[in-house]
This record gives sequence, C-alpha cells and structure tokens, in this order.
Amino acid sequence: MTRTVYVNGDYLPEAEATVSIFDRGFLMADGVYEVTSVLGGKLIDFAGHAKRLERSLNELDMKKPACFDDLLEVHRELVRLNAIDEGLIYLQITRGSDGDRDFVFPDPDTTEPTVVLFTQSKPGLADSAQSRTGTKIISIEDIRWGRRDIKTVQLLYPSMGKMMAKKAGCDDAWLVEDGHVTEGTSNNAYIVKGGKIITRQLSNDILHGITRAAVLRFAREAQMEIEERSFTIEEAQAADEAFTTSASAFVMPVVEIDGVVLGDGTPGPVAKRLREIYLDESVKSAI
Amino acid sequence: MTRTVYVNGDYLPEAEATVSIFDRGFLMADGVYEVTSVLGGKLIDFAGHAKRLERSLNELDMKKPACFDDLLEVHRELVRLNAIDEGLIYLQITRGSDGDRDFVFPDPDTTEPTVVLFTQSKPGLADSAQSRTGTKIISIEDIRWGRRDIKTVQLLYPSMGKMMAKKAGCDDAWLVEDGHVTEGTSNNAYIVKGGKIITRQLSNDILHGITRAAVLRFAREAQMEIEERSFTIEEAQAADEAFTTSASAFVMPVVEIDGVVLGDGTPGPVAKRLREIYLDESVKSAI
Repeated sequence: MTRTVYVNGDYLPEAEATVSIFDRGFLMADGVYEVTSVLGGKLIDFAGHAKRLERSLNELDMKKPACFDDLLEVHRELVRLNAIDEGLIYLQITRGSDGDRDFVFPDPDTTEPTVVLFTQSKPGLADSAQSRTGTKIISIEDIRWGRRDIKTVQLLYPSMGKMMAKKAGCDDAWLVEDGHVTEGTSNNAYIVKGGKIITRQLSNDILHGITRAAVLRFAREAQMEIEERSFTIEEAQAADEAFTTSASAFVMPVVEIDGVVLGDGTPGPVAKRLREIYLDESVKSAI
Repeated sequence: MTRTVYVNGDYLPEAEATVSIFDRGFLMADGVYEVTSVLGGKLIDFAGHAKRLERSLNELDMKKPACFDDLLEVHRELVRLNAIDEGLIYLQITRGSDGDRDFVFPDPDTTEPTVVLFTQSKPGLADSAQSRTGTKIISIEDIRWGRRDIKTVQLLYPSMGKMMAKKAGCDDAWLVEDGHVTEGTSNNAYIVKGGKIITRQLSNDILHGITRAAVLRFAREAQMEIEERSFTIEEAQAADEAFTTSASAFVMPVVEIDGVVLGDGTPGPVAKRLREIYLDESVKSAI
C-alpha cells in the first residue's frame, strides 16, 4: 500500500509529494517539526505537541499556517487513510517560499508556510524488543546551535551522532557540553541513583520534551524523587540505571554508557516502571 | 522570462522544480551548498568553489553525485539558458532520500544525492551602490553549530541574524563568540589598523571563504601586511576601517559597527583597493 501524505492541504500518494526547491526548509533549514506517536490508532500527547509547535513558530517569528487549527483533523485523517495502528506521525512547517533565495525572511503577508505531514507504521512500537534489552550509548561532544529548545529541522549533527553510535556498535549518543550531558540525539537523558531520578533542568540547551514533561508528572504522582540538574558521563556511568524519553520511543532504558555496563546490564526497575506508567496513562488519554 | 533551473540531471522551468518531501535536505538540513558569482557571463573562482564543495561532502561522509565532474558544464549551461551577465549560481547537494525519514544515513549504494542549481540575475553586482556607501553592521552572539567550516544549509541563525540587523536599521550582523568576532552572517570579517589587515585565522569556527583566500593572496601580492587572528568588537570599532568578503558581494566596506562610525563613515582605502584588485583579477581569470 502506498502511503498517503499531506502537503499544503492536499492528500497525495507519497511518490507525488514534493516541495519547491526554493522552499526555505530545503534551502535554509528554516522549519520546525513535531513527531506524535500513534497507539491503538490514537494520538499520544497531541495537545502537548501542538502547544510546543506553536511555541517553536513564535520563537522563529514564523506565522501559523492557515490549517493550524485543523492539524488534529489532518493527523486523524492520515491515521485513517494509512490504517495506522502503531506508529508515528511526522509534521513539518517551514517558512515557505517566495520563489527565490534570500537570507531575509519573505514577506509573511504574501508567503504561506509549507505544511507537510506523513505517517510511519511501526507495528510493535509499544512493546519494542529494544525496550526489553535496553540501549547502549556513547558520548560525543555537543556542537549543536544554542537554541535546542526550538524544535528546528537542523538535524544534521544529531544524525551524525546516530552514525557515530552505529559505527561504535551502539544504539545512540548522549551529547556533552562543558563536561555535562545535555540530552540524547533525539531524546532527553536521565539517570537514577539511590531511587532518585536525575535529569537536566529545562533551558535553551535542551529540547523541552513533551514525553519528559509527562514522565516527570507521572513520576511525581508515583511519589518518586526527582532532581532537575545537569550530570556528567562519569556520574551516569556510576548510576544505578539510566534511560531516555522521547515521543517515538517513550521511556527507553540505557544499559551501557561508553562501554561501562550499568548495574547488571539489563533495564532498571525505575525505567521499566516509568515506561509502563507512561504507556498506560498515555493510551488512556490518547485522542 | 521564466528561469530554467537544474534538478538531478534535468533542466526545468523553475515552477516545476521540486524535491521529495523525504529529501534529507528538507527533513534534516543534511546538505551542503556553494554560491558562485557570474561577471560578464563567466564564473568567478569556480575551481575554489568546486574544491570546497568536495571537502564539505567528504567531511559529512556524503558521496559525490554522479554529475560531480559535469558541474562546470551545468553552471555554464544555466548561465547560457538564463542569459546571465552578472549574477549568482547557487548549487546545493543533499544526501537525497530513500523514501522515508530516519536519523541514520540512507545506504549510499542505493541512494543518490540530490543536486539542485539555479541562477539569480543581479545586474550591477560588480558596481553595487552598497559597495560605494558601505554597510552598517550590528554584533550578535554566535550560537551556530561548531562546524562552520562545512558549508551546510543550516542557515536559520544567519538568516535570523540578517533579520535582527534589518530591524536595527542595519545591513548585516557580525557574530561574536567568547568575546571575539567569528565572521559575518554570510561573509568573512576584517578590520584594518595602521595599514595592517586583520582577519580571524582559519579553524572550524569560520567558513574558509574562497573570496577570503583570493583577497588575502592579492593583498600579499600588493605588499599589504596581514595578521590572521581574532579581534573584538571594541577593537573593530577603533579600527581605521573594516570590510567583509564573500563570493556574492566580493569585498564590501563596513562603515558602522554597533552604532559607532568608522573613520569618516565612508568606505576605507584598503577595502576599496582590495575590491578593485579582486574584481580585476577575478574577471581576468573567470571561466
């Protein structure tokens, strides 16, 4: 079955889905995105993603597309058209194109944002094999730009980081700046020590994860202790356990950091419990 | 006249020139570019741009497109088809698309890079009004990623910088990191003090400008003294003159920095002389 995707108001076969070569998303990475999970055919944390999307647009002085208030309906229609049970919906909005290339933003009165959405079917997403064995990560220097709180498509370095991890026989990379972990290439990073969950405080240095916010809320409701502060790789290697959170992998245990095995090398109890709670609660409130 | 552009081997009317929404240039800023000037219908510094392009591809483990050795011919054909006398040719190569989105690079054996070129006609480019009055610049913090030596399409912040300059009633911005100027948003930065030309040394912090290399070579040939080191905004404000170099603006005098007028507020003699030499020599060796 060919995928149906959404481009600027049209539902199209994926092979026909294109954007102008003058689109600022293509020429200048002038775009933002969100990824929403689908479980049981329903959207997880949609309101959170929509809110962060609006914030990203605002931070970049990018106008809302006309279809902004219809985005929930577009998501649902793509789930329906592509019969997605478990998977992801990717959404990207760029500043569009006025038909040429210039560093100066095009006039927002005459230039419409480009809106693209597509689905990815991922059967077994909630019960992934990786979540049962855990992931191995390496640490690399964080050389990304300074506004990681804005979810832009400037993903070249995270992409390079995944390749570095792959070459090292690992699954992912944690990024380190000034000696402290900022986050993973496409997820927020956590360690657990003496029952306490430690994760970096929010700032422009990291993405304000929608899944992070939900998981921390559930952890607090479950009376777990949380400390929001930065930590080093050495501290992580000496932790009882570690994990990451993201919209597409939920809560993912980490069992090895730069070759050092954490605990007994299997997913820790806090990560497993949080994954369970997150999936339970998120599916309940999915729309 | 509608522009003819080049996309993956085809010469197309600009309105029909598109790329897949799955192109990694669009989804992940996984692409590099070059801009070559055209004067008198001929290409300026083409060999330098081709060499830097190859370096950018190598640094990102991106394979050369099949058409790599034909790029000079493609440039010339676009100049001919669009009857460009003075202007620019923009070239972008991305890692292409394997038809879906993943941080992991697609298999280079089965995924072809995307190659896009288009012209911009700019009559009066060599004798621009701005080069006669000079530019006013502001300084802003440099928050770009750490590999500015690779000419990637991650141009959101330079673009935001131009907008900040515009809002401040200025023409451009110089980027400052750890108290020192790195470069302009899309050019290399220079000051002149006591006849000496001062510009930041090459490193991963700045673009290795093709025009920078040529201008420094011509300056040395003209027995001008050059010092390659970083400098502060305060030092620049106290300089005799300042200027920038880029492939599209050649040598461009700067006459005001953060509200401080340099000298008598008109282009300085060194900048004017270097612009003249650069244009003379470049046109002579244009191909």
